Amino acid sequence: MPGGQSKPLLRALGGEKPERPPWWLMRQAGRYLPEYHALRAQAPSFVDFCLNPLLATEATLQPVRRFGMDAAIVFADILLVPRALGQRVTFGEDGPLLEAIEESGGVAGLHQRDLSGLAPVYETVRRSRTELSPEIALIGFAGSPWTVATYMVEGGASRDFLRVKAWAYRDPSGFTALIELIADATVLYLSGQIVAGADVVQLFDSWAGILSESGFERWVIAPTRRITAALKQAFPTVPVIGFPRGAGLFYERYAAESGVDVVGIDSAVPLSFARERLQGCVAVQGNLDPVALLVGGAALQQEVQQIRAALADGPFIFNLGHGVLPQTPPEHVAQLAKLLAEPVAPA
Amino acid sequence: MPGGQSKPLLRALGGEKPERPPWWLMRQAGRYLPEYHALRAQAPSFVDFCLNPLLATEATLQPVRRFGMDAAIVFADILLVPRALGQRVTFGEDGPLLEAIEESGGVAGLHQRDLSGLAPVYETVRRSRTELSPEIALIGFAGSPWTVATYMVEGGASRDFLRVKAWAYRDPSGFTALIELIADATVLYLSGQIVAGADVVQLFDSWAGILSESGFERWVIAPTRRITAALKQAFPTVPVIGFPRGAGLFYERYAAESGVDVVGIDSAVPLSFARERLQGCVAVQGNLDPVALLVGGAALQQEVQQIRAALADGPFIFNLGHGVLPQTPPEHVAQLAKLLAEPVAPA
Repeated sequence: MPGGQSKPLLRALGGEKPERPPWWLMRQAGRYLPEYHALRAQAPSFVDFCLNPLLATEATLQPVRRFGMDAAIVFADILLVPRALGQRVTFGEDGPLLEAIEESGGVAGLHQRDLSGLAPVYETVRRSRTELSPEIALIGFAGSPWTVATYMVEGGASRDFLRVKAWAYRDPSGFTALIELIADATVLYLSGQIVAGADVVQLFDSWAGILSESGFERWVIAPTRRITAALKQAFPTVPVIGFPRGAGLFYERYAAESGVDVVGIDSAVPLSFARERLQGCVAVQGNLDPVALLVGGAALQQEVQQIRAALADGPFIFNLGHGVLPQTPPEHVAQLAKLLAEPVAPA
Repeated sequence: MPGGQSKPLLRALGGEKPERPPWWLMRQAGRYLPEYHALRAQAPSFVDFCLNPLLATEATLQPVRRFGMDAAIVFADILLVPRALGQRVTFGEDGPLLEAIEESGGVAGLHQRDLSGLAPVYETVRRSRTELSPEIALIGFAGSPWTVATYMVEGGASRDFLRVKAWAYRDPSGFTALIELIADATVLYLSGQIVAGADVVQLFDSWAGILSESGFERWVIAPTRRITAALKQAFPTVPVIGFPRGAGLFYERYAAESGVDVVGIDSAVPLSFARERLQGCVAVQGNLDPVALLVGGAALQQEVQQIRAALADGPFIFNLGHGVLPQTPPEHVAQLAKLLAEPVAPA
């Protein structure tokens, strides 16, 4: 059987109807796993951990070893890109902290051509691909330009995104320069991961949902299309997953116009909408509420059953609608694995 | 001219096509106004301020006096209801703090029949209605049961709404008891405001956007319908505005099924969708991005023009897509008032 064809996740994206849907979970590697904590303690900082290919490879493999997902996702962080662009990035108790870039200075302080700071991630991809069995897909990823820009301009997580949105309103052409700089760096970064062995790549646009219509067109769809166009030219057979979390009434346009092959849907997307309006155009990935996984039991079973019944007839990857919550009991992920291994009950 | 008919906001909801849209702004009274800070200093705590009819009436009137909106909204807080139900509520630097109610105890610790703690709000409504000129509408309001429940269960603002969503998944009938208790208290509270002189009432469902489909049906649509049905029976001519912020792909169902007369839309709702899918069924209120108001100038002008061009032909109230940001320069609100007084330029 030739390379990619042995992977259930790639086969499902290629149009085959599997008996059970391929699955993986956003943040499947990480804090809910005791073995992750033990591993994490071996590096002084989170950035050091991400940039240590031995440790990051092990973190990548841990959940697949325990639960048998159909894909591993390289252990890294979307803020490694701003760091590689020259911005100072640290991770504290309350989340990431960046030395925020100023509207007045624009992109002047950033360098784009030297992304050598990202080389350890490629090494993690290479090692992970070597260690994974051939039927498991390896997913590379990056943050989308808009989401990465929010952190770069706000200096961290934000409640109301005042600074970045104000810049975008006040000086759209200056802000476009920042977005395009990130987009072009993202093309290089994802290309590097693909060359190193990633079978699929995902763009995380966690803050796509806070924009108005013109903002969504300009800061989400346009840069995503810029990235997918470049990747498709270089790697026409590598699927691109886009996850514009919270995109709501923009999901349909995103599916039609962004150039991605798979659209990740959050838990607020109605299943009938995903089936009727998205699956005709793209494959769909999602959308179990992470809180249902945290709760487990009958609630988990019911939600999983509904999602499978609605989406498994079209091109589909089972996933969460957002990342695994750190408080999630690992046994509930085992319950989910078992549920997904069963044939779906009649609706 | 008989009572309500002299109010441009009510006339617009009654189907008249005004030359310029009626307008008001969510959080139009509050921290962006220097005169509010001076007033606020006269009460020891925010709760004391809300429950002092003299001060709260003055806060209600301040923005209308300065900018000439078509409506005043009674100065109060959605967490006065849990407080009246017997929960301890305080407001600190970082937002509200509540003594969170426990899933195990359910609604046992709350009392519903005695809502006398809310009497000062009715007095504020009465005084405001007396002092406002007759062409200005007075809006009463409450939080929607789901949004109020998030604060009651999480103990304040939340990032991931773990506790409240877990309760709803784990014990839907116990959680229904809480939601219905809040809904019934809300009917009494809004009825009290209407009897005291409110011309319109608004339900704020700030966290409607974090629910999956079944949750949205059960925790947003059903209790909203319970409230609107009771209000319509008692006060058939009083319009009800529902604002399910972030409802995205559920907005259409909300408009069709919740029983509200006006749907408040956030800034992420595309204008063409609001025109084509909502205005046939309900009046629409919204949806200027508060950051565009903060920025002012050409960006503000352009956004206002787009919204008016798209929505002013149907039943429409101009508003923000969320509350006024505290950092907003009052001069930008004056610019907005001026823009809205002009006839709309041809598209």
